Amino acid sequence: MTHTYRRIVLASRPSGWVTAENFRLETLEAVPLKEGELRVRNHYLSLDPYMRGRMNDTKSYAQPQAIGATMVGGTVGLVVESKNPHFVVGDAVRGMLGWAEEGVSDGTGLTKIDTRQIPISAFLGVVGMPGMTAWYGYNKILEPRAGETVVVSAASGAVGSVVGQLAKLAGVRVVGIAGGPEKCRYVTEELGFDACVDYRKASDVKSLAALLAEAAPKGIDCHFENVGGDVLNAVLSLLNPFARVAICGLITDYNNPAGEMAKSAIVNPAMFLVARFKMQGFIVSDHLDLWPLGLGELAGLVAEGKLRYRESIAPDLAHAPEAFIGLLQGKNFGKQLVKLI
Amino acid sequence: MTHTYRRIVLASRPSGWVTAENFRLETLEAVPLKEGELRVRNHYLSLDPYMRGRMNDTKSYAQPQAIGATMVGGTVGLVVESKNPHFVVGDAVRGMLGWAEEGVSDGTGLTKIDTRQIPISAFLGVVGMPGMTAWYGYNKILEPRAGETVVVSAASGAVGSVVGQLAKLAGVRVVGIAGGPEKCRYVTEELGFDACVDYRKASDVKSLAALLAEAAPKGIDCHFENVGGDVLNAVLSLLNPFARVAICGLITDYNNPAGEMAKSAIVNPAMFLVARFKMQGFIVSDHLDLWPLGLGELAGLVAEGKLRYRESIAPDLAHAPEAFIGLLQGKNFGKQLVKLI
Repeated sequence: MTHTYRRIVLASRPSGWVTAENFRLETLEAVPLKEGELRVRNHYLSLDPYMRGRMNDTKSYAQPQAIGATMVGGTVGLVVESKNPHFVVGDAVRGMLGWAEEGVSDGTGLTKIDTRQIPISAFLGVVGMPGMTAWYGYNKILEPRAGETVVVSAASGAVGSVVGQLAKLAGVRVVGIAGGPEKCRYVTEELGFDACVDYRKASDVKSLAALLAEAAPKGIDCHFENVGGDVLNAVLSLLNPFARVAICGLITDYNNPAGEMAKSAIVNPAMFLVARFKMQGFIVSDHLDLWPLGLGELAGLVAEGKLRYRESIAPDLAHAPEAFIGLLQGKNFGKQLVKLI
Repeated sequence: MTHTYRRIVLASRPSGWVTAENFRLETLEAVPLKEGELRVRNHYLSLDPYMRGRMNDTKSYAQPQAIGATMVGGTVGLVVESKNPHFVVGDAVRGMLGWAEEGVSDGTGLTKIDTRQIPISAFLGVVGMPGMTAWYGYNKILEPRAGETVVVSAASGAVGSVVGQLAKLAGVRVVGIAGGPEKCRYVTEELGFDACVDYRKASDVKSLAALLAEAAPKGIDCHFENVGGDVLNAVLSLLNPFARVAICGLITDYNNPAGEMAKSAIVNPAMFLVARFKMQGFIVSDHLDLWPLGLGELAGLVAEGKLRYRESIAPDLAHAPEAFIGLLQGKNFGKQLVKLI
């Protein structure tokens, strides 16, 4: 007795903006498990900006996504069949099973998760890779001190919202940058940031810097960058001496045609000397050794109600491409997920 | 009985390239010492790229140089008259007495130097601010590990030559970047660098990167930047994961007209994510606490003959403007000094 499931593969590489035509929905026959394998029925798929990079054929920190293969992606779900001694049916697991309703694994890269106090979807967000990304950049690169000012771009997003809340829990002044009044209201009123700058109100780097200067009257000591381009250049112009800048993402440029990088160029490197600051790029998967510590702290804060989060949930795998394109355009509000069951 | 001495003041602020007209040579009457003061007859004046920044009227890490005031500058000389209990006639001292044949001080910022084993001029170079700049960036930002490759721009200069020699003493592979075959030969044959790239052989960033890739076949782990612009962009394209970049100077841009910064723009910040590298600007005067340690180590290496250096010496104060303009154009070879006696 067999069954079918759906998945989405990369049909073609985008040139510039991603379109729905770059993806293809397929229905496959499930294959029987071999000894040592287990089958997971995925409940949620995580959509994240890094996926855009994998769609290109250029050198990066990870291999490009192969054409015709299941799109890469983080998932949470339940074990539904097991020939692996370490997993039993009913175990909740997080893994990288991709844009697919189910997946077969030998257990490598799967982590059991405890969903008794925390909803399963949160393990793809605030207590998953995005939360850990925030935790690493905040604690290991920015290291804000009392009295300093932290700026976070994409402040209402899965990563930015955690960065700002960690700062507030530590008593540090936090200014968010987000797109539109609704996101800014969420950032200040629900997440408790001290201020939020709506970048859509600025027409250029200079006017954005003026809005930021108003929200950060003592200058900027730490910056957590998810965006790049004008946002990054505006922040750099306001850095205090010995500032720290964590480069987590540069979403502004992810859809540039190959070879075009002008939007995110750092136009005034002399600021490196004026403010003697440190700028450091990072990828959270380089630091797997710290995940148990970081995720443990984040889970504790969520369970105590001290860390809030919001999710945008697309209703079905077929909607994943549209939701992903929306994410790259900033249309999501909070962590973007796809419901698979 | 009195005497006169000469000094050079800032006559006007340059717009773009510095010219001789931005300076004015003056002859002054020496004034009698007050209680607590001493008079130093300067033997050498140090010319350094940072002086260009002080000639502007823009915000930087230091106050702009005032119009009509003695040009800022490091000096070494001998005490010739003293009403200060801590200094006696004949003491050799290093200080910031500016572009002048002599200076009066209350002792603040003057350091006694021991010229028994090391020539007095070296206290403005290899065992002075430039040497300490190299020491700080090398030890506190780059921290190269065995088997790594370090790149240094302006490799034959006062700072770059020390960076590369420190790396060689530690057994690290070093590639210099310098202008012209004579400087490159000096860097490899006399200073012992493993390779030197002549940037004049490259017509653009891409061809410069190709030359660098040949000289650094295992990629670049550490970079000490004195130049900026194409040099920096070429190096960034070749960085290995977890590389460190110390921004010491960006001389390419020091003579840009105000507001124009395009030459040194960092064109591909995505490399921050691809290579997860750290880039940090620094100013050696922020770290005065480390000078005794660093200068002590450098003096030991010079005395043992393990650290080589070269000087370009202009013969008289009147030649200082011309020598300074040459320095900004890369015409000097080694540490640029002006002989004042």
